[in-house]
Amino acid sequence: MARASSLSGFPEWLPDGRVVEQHVLDSLRRTFELHGFAGIETRAVEPLSQLLRKGETSKEVYLLRRLQEDTEGDDADPDKQLGLHFDLTVPFARYVLEHAGQLTFPFKRYQIQKVWRGERPQDGRFREFTQADIDVVGADTLPFHYEVELPLVMAEALAALPVPEVRISVNNRKVAQGFYEAVGLADVESALRVIDKLDKIGPAAVAEALQREAGATAEQADQALRLAAISGTDAAVADQVLALGARSTLLDEGLGELVALLEAAQERSPGTVVADLKIARGLDYYTGSVYETTLVGHENLGSICSGGRYDSLASDGRRTYPGVGLSIGVSRLLARVLGDGLATASRGVPTAVLVAVTDEEHRAASDRTAQALRARGIPVDVAPTAAKFGKQIRYADRRGIPFVWFPGEDGDEVKDIRSGEQQAADAGSWEPPEEDRWPRVVAAGSAGAAGER
Amino acid sequence: MARASSLSGFPEWLPDGRVVEQHVLDSLRRTFELHGFAGIETRAVEPLSQLLRKGETSKEVYLLRRLQEDTEGDDADPDKQLGLHFDLTVPFARYVLEHAGQLTFPFKRYQIQKVWRGERPQDGRFREFTQADIDVVGADTLPFHYEVELPLVMAEALAALPVPEVRISVNNRKVAQGFYEAVGLADVESALRVIDKLDKIGPAAVAEALQREAGATAEQADQALRLAAISGTDAAVADQVLALGARSTLLDEGLGELVALLEAAQERSPGTVVADLKIARGLDYYTGSVYETTLVGHENLGSICSGGRYDSLASDGRRTYPGVGLSIGVSRLLARVLGDGLATASRGVPTAVLVAVTDEEHRAASDRTAQALRARGIPVDVAPTAAKFGKQIRYADRRGIPFVWFPGEDGDEVKDIRSGEQQAADAGSWEPPEEDRWPRVVAAGSAGAAGER
Repeated sequence: MARASSLSGFPEWLPDGRVVEQHVLDSLRRTFELHGFAGIETRAVEPLSQLLRKGETSKEVYLLRRLQEDTEGDDADPDKQLGLHFDLTVPFARYVLEHAGQLTFPFKRYQIQKVWRGERPQDGRFREFTQADIDVVGADTLPFHYEVELPLVMAEALAALPVPEVRISVNNRKVAQGFYEAVGLADVESALRVIDKLDKIGPAAVAEALQREAGATAEQADQALRLAAISGTDAAVADQVLALGARSTLLDEGLGELVALLEAAQERSPGTVVADLKIARGLDYYTGSVYETTLVGHENLGSICSGGRYDSLASDGRRTYPGVGLSIGVSRLLARVLGDGLATASRGVPTAVLVAVTDEEHRAASDRTAQALRARGIPVDVAPTAAKFGKQIRYADRRGIPFVWFPGEDGDEVKDIRSGEQQAADAGSWEPPEEDRWPRVVAAGSAGAAGER
Repeated sequence: MARASSLSGFPEWLPDGRVVEQHVLDSLRRTFELHGFAGIETRAVEPLSQLLRKGETSKEVYLLRRLQEDTEGDDADPDKQLGLHFDLTVPFARYVLEHAGQLTFPFKRYQIQKVWRGERPQDGRFREFTQADIDVVGADTLPFHYEVELPLVMAEALAALPVPEVRISVNNRKVAQGFYEAVGLADVESALRVIDKLDKIGPAAVAEALQREAGATAEQADQALRLAAISGTDAAVADQVLALGARSTLLDEGLGELVALLEAAQERSPGTVVADLKIARGLDYYTGSVYETTLVGHENLGSICSGGRYDSLASDGRRTYPGVGLSIGVSRLLARVLGDGLATASRGVPTAVLVAVTDEEHRAASDRTAQALRARGIPVDVAPTAAKFGKQIRYADRRGIPFVWFPGEDGDEVKDIRSGEQQAADAGSWEPPEEDRWPRVVAAGSAGAAGER
């Protein structure tokens, strides 16, 4: 079992679990870089004043203080008090403002780092976890087409992982707001907050709450529920919305964007993107497209990749920086992958070959053989002691190392300890089968196997 | 300039600096894995009781508290109070004890993570920085040969980086202790503490302090200074020590180990490892070999890679876990590399090719071209707007993207914007020159160039 954790909410993996995690991180990085996203890292801490810019999340922040604090004064000043970042969006917004003069816009960046939240740990929720974010930000303007591009990059990134297929559900703030305003439902924020509870409390309770909390008439509540019931993968979604009778410029704009996203997705990643007009989460701060992603067959895990368009990621008074971004909850995803055995590593060590040691006087010869193999990119370990060969083979076997190399006065031999096959070999030219060179990560039920690199 | 930091002690890099950092991290990982070290990560936090096991370091610890702490009680209990780890050795020792039943020994691991220290920031000292550690630990026993192997792995890892050559200075606790005891200098710990100041206060003051603080006679102090003056790269070091006249079993054992290390190093990494018998730092807790590493020409940076042998990394009452390990101060090294321009990135974006957009109606065609190139492992971006081609070329130029791709009705063309050369190209087969595919990291004054991957 790959998981290991003694402190609730702070996951740790044994070496074979870490091989899977590293494979996932490498794979994400490769997809993001193939799409031109530059990697950055930000410091783990931000001033509390930065972290509290969104008031609601304040309860989750871990504050820092030095064990031997000189003064108590710093604690009181939110500009000096430091806290661990709880997402990668707040530090990215600060990074963009701070270095705007040295960046080129639109700026496409990916960022894969740990974040911390002082939440009560529960299934799939951690206090320390890794996020993988992509965002593109413009200076003052940002074309709509990035709202199409970014979820498709994430679809490609997730498809390259050893996980079940994903479903990206999308909505658009302009559709919801345009529709509500057209039917005379003025309190858009409250309406969205109520609609967000649809799956939990059901349509009857939502209709009632829309009237009580959002000032809706019975007719407006009914219209909002009809809108929320619409879903689909093509332009028919827009037809269904228009068939409800409401029209406004904003609604038309939103539907145009939604259909453009669906049609591009149908071409580039058929079946992955679905419009779901009941999605309301995040519509309070996103201003255009919003995205949520579930693993098919693991919907109970919740969204593993969310995001959207925001017209003002950051602003320094002179300029605003609109953006589109999505964030993968890597630890949540990985906990499910490892916990359910959806993917496993072929071994927990990088080593493909163990070079045996005949006796301690000849260790240097084994070291030379190992170096000759490493020089050609083959990961090699040398036996810890000149024990009987049977014991040295067991050392390899217990670690999943497939080959044991025996140095000999009359030439070397290499043994595949899985098949028992042994053959003469030269350290200057022998190659392991490519699938044995590095640990592989194998998705359960898949015939294929992804190399670690 | 690659560096960017608004919070003292918390370094951050602009994208081109991050390319160099990522190259360094990838290169270290590759060397460690070629030598059979398994990668692990531990959580960022440990209970304060763990962190305080070495009393002296306690002043550097950052403690955590939740902004909305439920109880004040946790603060008082060092088993519940959490702090950020200040090195990777303490968490590794805890990891080994916690998972001993699921690990195989000797266990070779590398670990590359950030650590935090609440120190006053100064040149080369950060509050948040990255360390890259390798350790091997045994259960109850660990053969000496690992004390030879591990510094040579680090020598190889550092030689693969775009940094000046390194000098690894070594000493051995057994030599110092064996010699002091042989000459009758009983307070070994105090003597080592005084010798550690040799470079700072000079031999006369050390001789005086040895008598005052370590209970040495004038003759013993003189002998200790003669020992500390010895250095060299081969067995002559042992001869010089023996010429001082003192003998003991422990001294002989230590000299045997020191010479074995020097001789193996001379074969595998000539000129890199030097015995320097005045090294005393760490000899209070290391029990055999100790290592310190300087960058040639940058000795004022201090040691960038230190470590040693410890007979008891961890112990659970039933078993002890002896180990050998070294730790590279990656951030310290990188701050010098970037600050002095010792290495630079060929560009700050991964992108090798920008696909131009003729007009927004044909953006999908440009996207298809980009996807065809990406499918063959070429990092590609698509122009943000269908501006005039001159403006699209400037977009590429400002980012250091070498190629711009022009889709055409009668066939595509690709332009090397450095030479201006433009030629017909097919997205299904065109390849960039290998040195342009990914950003390169180039060491100053070197003709060679290392690919990012």
